[in-house]
Formats: sequence, structure tokens, C-alpha cells
Amino acid sequence: MALIVQKYGGTSVGTVERIQAVAERVARFRERGDQVVVVVSAMSGETNRLIELANGVHDNPPAREMDVLVSTGEQVTIALLSMALQKLNVGARSYTGGQVAIRTDNTHSKARIEEIDDRKMRADLDAGRVCVVAGFQGIDQDGNITTLGRGGSDTTAVALAAALKADECQIYTDVDGVYTTDPRVVDTARRLDSITFEEMLEMASLGSKVLQIRSVEFAGKYNVPLRVLSSFQEGPGTLITVDDEVDMEKPVISGIAFTRDEAKITVRGAPDTPGIAFKILGPVSDANIEVDMIVQNVGADGATDFTFTVHRNDFAKAKEALKQAAEELGNPEIIGDDKIAKISLVGVGMRSHAGVASKMFQTLAAEGVNITMISTSEIKVSVVVAEKYLELAVRALHQAFELDQPAA
Amino acid sequence: MALIVQKYGGTSVGTVERIQAVAERVARFRERGDQVVVVVSAMSGETNRLIELANGVHDNPPAREMDVLVSTGEQVTIALLSMALQKLNVGARSYTGGQVAIRTDNTHSKARIEEIDDRKMRADLDAGRVCVVAGFQGIDQDGNITTLGRGGSDTTAVALAAALKADECQIYTDVDGVYTTDPRVVDTARRLDSITFEEMLEMASLGSKVLQIRSVEFAGKYNVPLRVLSSFQEGPGTLITVDDEVDMEKPVISGIAFTRDEAKITVRGAPDTPGIAFKILGPVSDANIEVDMIVQNVGADGATDFTFTVHRNDFAKAKEALKQAAEELGNPEIIGDDKIAKISLVGVGMRSHAGVASKMFQTLAAEGVNITMISTSEIKVSVVVAEKYLELAVRALHQAFELDQPAA
Repeated sequence: MALIVQKYGGTSVGTVERIQAVAERVARFRERGDQVVVVVSAMSGETNRLIELANGVHDNPPAREMDVLVSTGEQVTIALLSMALQKLNVGARSYTGGQVAIRTDNTHSKARIEEIDDRKMRADLDAGRVCVVAGFQGIDQDGNITTLGRGGSDTTAVALAAALKADECQIYTDVDGVYTTDPRVVDTARRLDSITFEEMLEMASLGSKVLQIRSVEFAGKYNVPLRVLSSFQEGPGTLITVDDEVDMEKPVISGIAFTRDEAKITVRGAPDTPGIAFKILGPVSDANIEVDMIVQNVGADGATDFTFTVHRNDFAKAKEALKQAAEELGNPEIIGDDKIAKISLVGVGMRSHAGVASKMFQTLAAEGVNITMISTSEIKVSVVVAEKYLELAVRALHQAFELDQPAA
Repeated sequence: MALIVQKYGGTSVGTVERIQAVAERVARFRERGDQVVVVVSAMSGETNRLIELANGVHDNPPAREMDVLVSTGEQVTIALLSMALQKLNVGARSYTGGQVAIRTDNTHSKARIEEIDDRKMRADLDAGRVCVVAGFQGIDQDGNITTLGRGGSDTTAVALAAALKADECQIYTDVDGVYTTDPRVVDTARRLDSITFEEMLEMASLGSKVLQIRSVEFAGKYNVPLRVLSSFQEGPGTLITVDDEVDMEKPVISGIAFTRDEAKITVRGAPDTPGIAFKILGPVSDANIEVDMIVQNVGADGATDFTFTVHRNDFAKAKEALKQAAEELGNPEIIGDDKIAKISLVGVGMRSHAGVASKMFQTLAAEGVNITMISTSEIKVSVVVAEKYLELAVRALHQAFELDQPAA
């Protein structure tokens, strides 16, 4: 018997039939004696329907009322799932975020959880009932409804698991786990049985959108065992674990993440003076553009080449911001490229293995792939290449690091 | 400057455009300095959509979860109306029943209001904000969401008006007031400037479905001035007043109510023994059938004729129930008629005027309308006639009692 928190996203509860399928799955866990808390999102499409209604009455809907509006989406799902469970003779009770209560700060539309009162849930679990909790929402100390922002249902699930000291937090989604890389690009991509929180964070922030980053951070911080599973097929999924000791058996890298939606901008021949980085990135940041990789090379002549990447959608805006600041920079040449892709090797094993980067560069060189930017962290090596080489490069790296082979 | 509680039903907030129209109306009250609390229902169609979803997962959805589900309907409306008000630069804040808080007992789907906390509303009104409150819903003492039952938004409005000691509770609907009778039957039917609570109760229970009976009772009990107005056109509507003294200027009757959806059953020649009424009505009541009018005539031979009316939908069921009890009644003849209509004259003026009943009978006789049942109360005279005479009878009575003439 275990205490399990399960989270089902919008697609998993998108129709009455799917809600019934979720109820049947929960019932199986109850049958084998587990205590279950279920966190659900709004039925797919519902949140967008509500946002459209809001846009019909206000071009910039006030955040407090927006939270009152969109929080109804999950409230509908909790009621329906509780009904479906009771139809299967499984005792169940639904709770809105405010009823649990999930206490947050008052930052409407992106509130942070401050405190969870687990008394009602404890009473239900002790009485053999399933608790069905609305994800994504909470209540501030004045009783206002808040939301945690899109995807916040994962965070709710992890927070409840932490508060209840659950044995496992299971995130049901439309994929059956975390893969060594995108199976659509590499057909020998393999589901990982486990991955560390740190690796998952790097994978998630690089476009493996299985889990919301915040929920992974949260799970790592509170030491909640997290498992990603498919709500449409059976299987063990991928367990996300704490990297409490260096496992010598662990492969050097766990996965390859990549993203196509970046663009790079190079400021060429700016004066190599203190503060030049701020002078370049200040205007970009002022334009509310997030910068990802940053690389600076000092040339021989006292000038510097400064390159950074931004989201492809911000490419034009970033170039415009720099153009306006050009005079202050001594009118350097500003060049850009939005046909780039970023590829990252991720693995905590890197810490104890030298040579990951050089093997990566060697592999890419052997395929004739030119690297235009490099950035490294403790558990990640990222390179920027021309977008046209993306698939070729990912497949070559996947094979070179033997990711298609099961871990020893 | 007055404190006004306004209630808008589902049709009045059925689309984004109508919600904007409500916001504009509320804004006009704010402009002239009134403090306004608005109670809204779910957008028309929304409650039925939610009920259908519930029926998809459970053939008899548990009441607690049904309340969680359907209460989202009003929650959507309060958010949208608050946004629409703010778009017009009118300060506004939305509240669910639980947030206000409207404390009820725990009878899900037909809860009764026990207590209202007016502190949040007072603070908003003092700060110049409009409070937009979800109708029809509340919260029990354990924090469970409850609903007051269909049409409960009227009750919410009256209860808030009582708690806030509002100057007026305005119920906006799709008719512009209470009429002397149905204008579709009598084209000279006239809107009443005022009507007493007692009269309104008799009119409402007889099929003039302008207001929910419970809200009228509530308003009478707490002495809340209630006004029925149209949300689609301007006008003073009808004020529902306390009948604190007999007004000699008041016309004898205020209106004519009628209903077609009744049927009558006669038990002919049952033994005139003590307990015969119970023996006849017991089986009917056991079958969960509500009985409306009851008339008993004692014949000369120690047998009695006993007639009662039921809703037309219960006609067959009531006859069946009696048939099963027939032996105990001495196998009397049981005859029925479901082609009947009930017509009632309603007016507190009857109390001080004799002869209303006889004038009514005379008028009907002059038109050749046969009366088959009569029942009277202090402010009402009801007759049952063949359904085919309904329009003729109502028009004749409307003219005979000069209801088409404005009150003196």
C-alpha cells in the first residue's frame, strides 16, 4: 500500500469517455490498496474557450477576474471525475484549490504556492476516499482565487505530494516516458527508466516538454519521487530521481535535447572595454527579450566579437533594439542568423567522465557539421549548428554515445 | 444615493454582448451615485451543458459533485461581468457564493441560506466598487459548495439585499413587470405599478413565473422592497410591497392568474365515514403526487363525492394509485378529466370587499362557462372550468373587474 498523487492533463480528461478511463485507472490503484490523490487539469479546449469569452468583454482582462474565470475549467473536471469514480463505487470527493486549501501569494495568473493544508485530504484518505483536486489553482490569504499559470497542474501535483509525503507523484501525459531524444528524429531513441532531476531540468528547458520546469524544480527541492507515464497505455514510464551519489554504472550522458526555435545575433568588432556586455545586452533586456546562450571572443586588435541567442520570434525585435544602441557601441557590425538549431548532451555522468565535449565535437566534425557556438555547464554541453544539420547531428550523437543501448 | 441589489438572469447575461449591456446599465446607476451589488445567473444554456456532461459519467450524479459542477456556471458570469465593468472604468470585484460568504445548510442542490457575511461587500461598496456575486450558490460550514436549486439566484439577491439592508432589490428579467394577467391571452392586460407580496405569491404559484416563490417569501419576511424590471427595455417595472394597511383606494382584485396544466379526479359515492379523505389522498400522496385543490360534497344518501386536482403529468399515476386502493374505499366510481383549467382572481382588496366571488360566478355564467370546482382563500378565488373556456373566461373577468383601467 502506497500513497500516490496522480496528475492527469487536459488531453487525458478531454472527453467524458477519457474521464471514465481515468476513473477506471484510479479504481485499479484503489483495488490494490493504494491511497490516491488525483490532480486534474481543465478538459482540453476549455481554458481557451474561457479566454475567448474574456477577450470578448475586455481587450486586457484584469488578472484577478481572469483567475476567477479560468479556474472554473478544472472545477468542472474535478466534479466529473468524482462522479465517474463514485459510479465505479470508489468513494471520492472533489476539492477546488481554495477548498483544499492551497494557499498562494497574490500574484494573479502566476501565483506561487506558500502553504498546503492537508487535513481534509488526510481525513478522506483515512476514510478510504480518493481526493480529486483541481490543479493550477489556489487561494490567497484574502480568499481571492489565484492560478499558478499554464501547466501549473504539474506543480499542484508535486506540491500535494510533498505536503502529503507521498510515495510517488505520477504525471500522466500523452507520452510514455522521457526518451534519450525525440523519437521522431532518431528512431532508435529509447525510453529512460530513470533520469535525475537535474538532467530532467536541462532536458525540459531545452524543449522536451514532458514536464513543466517549475514542477521538476519543486520535486527536486522537496525530494518527491516523480514518474512520467502515459495515460493511454500501460508501462512503467520514467522515474525522475534524486542524484544522491555518483553511480559509476550510469552512462556518461542520459539524453540529447535540441531546439529549432532559436536565432543568434553577433556584434562584431565592438570595443573590448569593461561593461561592453551590459551595453549590448541592456537594450535587449529592456525590450523584454530573454537571452539564452552568450559567447564572447576577444580578437587580437582590442575589439571583441559578442554572440548571443534569443527565441526566433524575438529575432527582429532584438536586432532593432541593438540598432538603436549601435552608436553607443561604436557602430559595430551586427549580423544575425535565424536558421540555427541548438543541440545539447545532458547527463550527470559527465561530472565523472572527461572527454564528453571532445567526443561530441569529433563526432560532429566526422559528419562535416560546423559548430558555430559552444556553451557548457556541469551536466550539459550545448552547441549551435546550422538548422539543416539538426537531424544528422542528433542521430550521429545518439549513436556515438550509445544511447540506443540499454543502460548496464 | 441608494444601495441597490440587482439580479440578472441567464437570458440577460446569455452572450458577451448582453453582459456588456448589463455592465452599461450598472454603470449608469454608479454614475448617479448609487452603490450597487449585482447578482448573476449562469449564461443561458450553460447549466444544461454542465448537466449533460454529468449525465455522461453518472446516471444519478451525486449531489455534492453536481453542486461543484453547476456552480461553475455563475462563476464564469461573475468574472466576465466584472471584466466588462472594469472595461467601462467602473471598479468591480467578483465573488463566488463561498467567497462572500453565503453560508447555507448542507442540503446539496436545494440548500437554504443561514447566514451572510457582508464585510467584503461593505468594504467594496465603501471603496466605490461594484460587487458582482454568483447567484444560486453558497458554502456549508465545512466549506462544501452548495446550490440553492434552480432559480435560486433570485433568492440570493433578496438575501443579500436583506443582509445589506438595501434600499431596493431589482430583479431584471425578460418581462417589464407583473401584469394583471397574461398579455398573450388578454391584450388589454396592464402592467401593475405595485403588487403586495401576498398577491405576488398567489400569482407566482399560479403560473405567473416572473419570480421564484421562495425569493418572494424571503423578501416579504425580511421586508425587502422588490422590483421586477426588464433587462431589455427601460421602465419602472412593478414594485412588490408590504401590505401594511388596507388601502381603500386599492382595486378589489389585482390580477388574474391561470394554469392549464392541471387535471381533476372525482371519487363518486364513497362512504361518508370519518377518515375517508385520508383513505383517498393517502395512496395519492404515497405515490409522491402533489394535490392542489380539494373539494368534498356530501350527498343525501350517506355517500360522498370527493374531487381533487393534480398536475396533468400525474393524472394517470394518480388514477392508478386510487384504483389499487379502490377495494378499501368500497369500490366507488372514479372519474377524471384532464381537459381542465384553473382561473384565480387574486387581490388583497378582497378582504374589505364582499361579493368578489359572486361577481365572478355571475360573469362566467353570463358567458355560459360552467364552473366545476370552487376554492377560496382570504385573497383569492379559484375556479376550475373546461379548458376550452379558458381564454373566454379570463377575458370576461379581466373586463368585469376593470383590470384594464389604471388604478385610481
